[in-house]
Amino acid sequence: MKIRELCENAKQASRELAMLPAKDKNRALIEIATALERRTGEILRENRDDVREGKEARLSNSLLDRLMLDEDRIRDMAWSLRNIASLPDPVGEVIDGWRLPNGLEIKKIRVPFGVLAVIYEARPNVTVDAAGLCLKTGNAVILRGGSASLHSIRMLNEVINGALIDAGLPANSVSLIESRDRSHLKQLLTMSEYIDLVIPRGGESLKEYLKKNSKIPVIYAAGGNCHIFVDASADLEKAVNIVVNAKVQRPGVCNAAETLLVHRDIAADFIPLIVKELAKRKVRLHMDTAGRLFLTGRSKAEESVTAATDVHYATEFLDLEMAVRVVDSVEEAIGHISEYGTGHSEAIVTNDLESSRKFSSSVDAACVYINASTRFTDGGEFGMGAEIGISTQKLHARGPLGLRELTSTKYVISGDGQVRG
Amino acid sequence: MKIRELCENAKQASRELAMLPAKDKNRALIEIATALERRTGEILRENRDDVREGKEARLSNSLLDRLMLDEDRIRDMAWSLRNIASLPDPVGEVIDGWRLPNGLEIKKIRVPFGVLAVIYEARPNVTVDAAGLCLKTGNAVILRGGSASLHSIRMLNEVINGALIDAGLPANSVSLIESRDRSHLKQLLTMSEYIDLVIPRGGESLKEYLKKNSKIPVIYAAGGNCHIFVDASADLEKAVNIVVNAKVQRPGVCNAAETLLVHRDIAADFIPLIVKELAKRKVRLHMDTAGRLFLTGRSKAEESVTAATDVHYATEFLDLEMAVRVVDSVEEAIGHISEYGTGHSEAIVTNDLESSRKFSSSVDAACVYINASTRFTDGGEFGMGAEIGISTQKLHARGPLGLRELTSTKYVISGDGQVRG
Repeated sequence: MKIRELCENAKQASRELAMLPAKDKNRALIEIATALERRTGEILRENRDDVREGKEARLSNSLLDRLMLDEDRIRDMAWSLRNIASLPDPVGEVIDGWRLPNGLEIKKIRVPFGVLAVIYEARPNVTVDAAGLCLKTGNAVILRGGSASLHSIRMLNEVINGALIDAGLPANSVSLIESRDRSHLKQLLTMSEYIDLVIPRGGESLKEYLKKNSKIPVIYAAGGNCHIFVDASADLEKAVNIVVNAKVQRPGVCNAAETLLVHRDIAADFIPLIVKELAKRKVRLHMDTAGRLFLTGRSKAEESVTAATDVHYATEFLDLEMAVRVVDSVEEAIGHISEYGTGHSEAIVTNDLESSRKFSSSVDAACVYINASTRFTDGGEFGMGAEIGISTQKLHARGPLGLRELTSTKYVISGDGQVRG
Repeated sequence: MKIRELCENAKQASRELAMLPAKDKNRALIEIATALERRTGEILRENRDDVREGKEARLSNSLLDRLMLDEDRIRDMAWSLRNIASLPDPVGEVIDGWRLPNGLEIKKIRVPFGVLAVIYEARPNVTVDAAGLCLKTGNAVILRGGSASLHSIRMLNEVINGALIDAGLPANSVSLIESRDRSHLKQLLTMSEYIDLVIPRGGESLKEYLKKNSKIPVIYAAGGNCHIFVDASADLEKAVNIVVNAKVQRPGVCNAAETLLVHRDIAADFIPLIVKELAKRKVRLHMDTAGRLFLTGRSKAEESVTAATDVHYATEFLDLEMAVRVVDSVEEAIGHISEYGTGHSEAIVTNDLESSRKFSSSVDAACVYINASTRFTDGGEFGMGAEIGISTQKLHARGPLGLRELTSTKYVISGDGQVRG
């Protein structure tokens, strides 16, 4: 496979895609959804090969679970495409416009980027999700999935390409780099002439690799070391609900909370209560010395609480495990978050207007919550309909990356002969 | 000088700056303007050392001109700061907001990036401009100017820092890396922990250096190989005015036109006319064979027209020199631009609605003009009040980079105890 040729073809396809009205793009998305359902048998057959090879290579159970497809998961992929088809098309949206004193009319319009490269790991469904989001936004996409899922994603790509041709779209709108090592990826990351943006969906090692090797702009989605600060004036019941939800509802994701900060003035009431509630849900706690002074010593739940260290504060547990620290003020909470946070999602539980104002203006993160769970940081929850990831960088897009975030803009300026004086 | 320490100090200052209301930032800008005027003598003294050293090092006259300061140029810097002070503060602007079905209220708010690094070359005035734009947008800035202007920019930095302290702002809001080689710059570009964005203001060699060495996101301002397409239906008089303005009014800048594309149906009338008008203004023309067939052979102006090659089409002349090519259709014009353009500013002169529609939707550039000169691509002309450069990349900001483009966003989500189900 020649990477440059593949990139040229993608660029060519992107020119056609950029011009397509929403109805043509939506028809293609629905065509792909139907093809996925029709060809479920073929997809599952290829997927079984991946799973068998994965078992032979002794992949972990959690990796095998991510790799594995079944009829439900394929139905979910098809649903996701039909959902994307139902969303408004961001391309062509006029997001600003004004008239200059000389009569020139300026419009700022959303346009596709051109060609995106999406680099991902085990989950084969990203193939379909990324293809759907890119097609909807008029972008061609080059996919580079994990080597463990090569049989599955090759088949998914074949299904997508067949459906694109049936729908009258250029087949090169979606292309796949099939390789089991990073040599092709490395070459891909030099193709700044053709590719406008790289979106990684993977862990820290992929991120470091891209930082070092990509000559193309990248939107990074870093991890989430998220905090909940329970202020002196917090409603205790709400605070318990929010902490439990943010920690327990789905601990393995980036918007789950990892550290609980408790205001000293409420600690005597709140700490025994939250320790009990979290213990019920099997959450292991690492608490600072000041916090442990507020333990009553009378409950079994408290026995399993261990001492917190800086390492715990810096850890994204992604598990039923949480650090707890007592702070003297909202300022101290903000200071802790500024030291250990990763700029993802941070929450305060408070009834004090001044604290809420300070927290929301001083905490430097993609999403700052007042009296709500950090778990809402999600394109679906935000009402964007779909997302390709959550950005913690500040350039271009911060927070959930929905359809709009997959577009650039252009200025169109209309006049009747104006020249500059 | 320790780069890491300087970056830490800038980060610390950025936290204070982010919280400042507009009036405090504006007071500081005006304080700096006043200090520049008051200390003009000191600044000119240091500048004379740079100019003397530059002459000894045999810098070109154009470089020496860019380096040289006088009272007028210092007054311009002060004016520019007062102008920035008079503009609306983008920080805190609520640019989107909605309520979710569960009652959560989401606001998307403009916030400063944090710390910007501005890397520039000979012009000492960038020191003041960049400092002003960054302060206004609540960002701390680390400046790294060209070695030829070290005496001047060191003094300008001293004046700025003094004024910041007088205005009660952290002096580390603006800091300068003083060095004569690129070793410090290289180290600076690894400080992604502290610096949020790098903005280069320089030529292609600086750009390539940053692509290779920066671990921090960069907004690139590439060159402008801009085109004017004169369509079959163009008003000849408007077309002449626009072409002359776009080529001649200031040929050395990135929004000047470099290639003229002429529709075959109008070539017999337009080519002799524009050749005459451009010859009057000493523009040398490189014309394709098809175009030269339309020369009348009767004017002296036509004698100096030489044959165009692909090299001419690819050249950003930045001088009184222009390539000319005849095309058969708007599609062919779009194809030429897509092959040779740099995505900066492209114009069509037409009276045909369909041509105008095709051109504006198909040409992939930061700014697309219909019946107006490309020379308007400028933050000042666009009514942004000030700009730090013109971006030709698609990520984050495309076109003139005004105050808004120097900000990021954050979501603030308010609830009354919502948790995710």
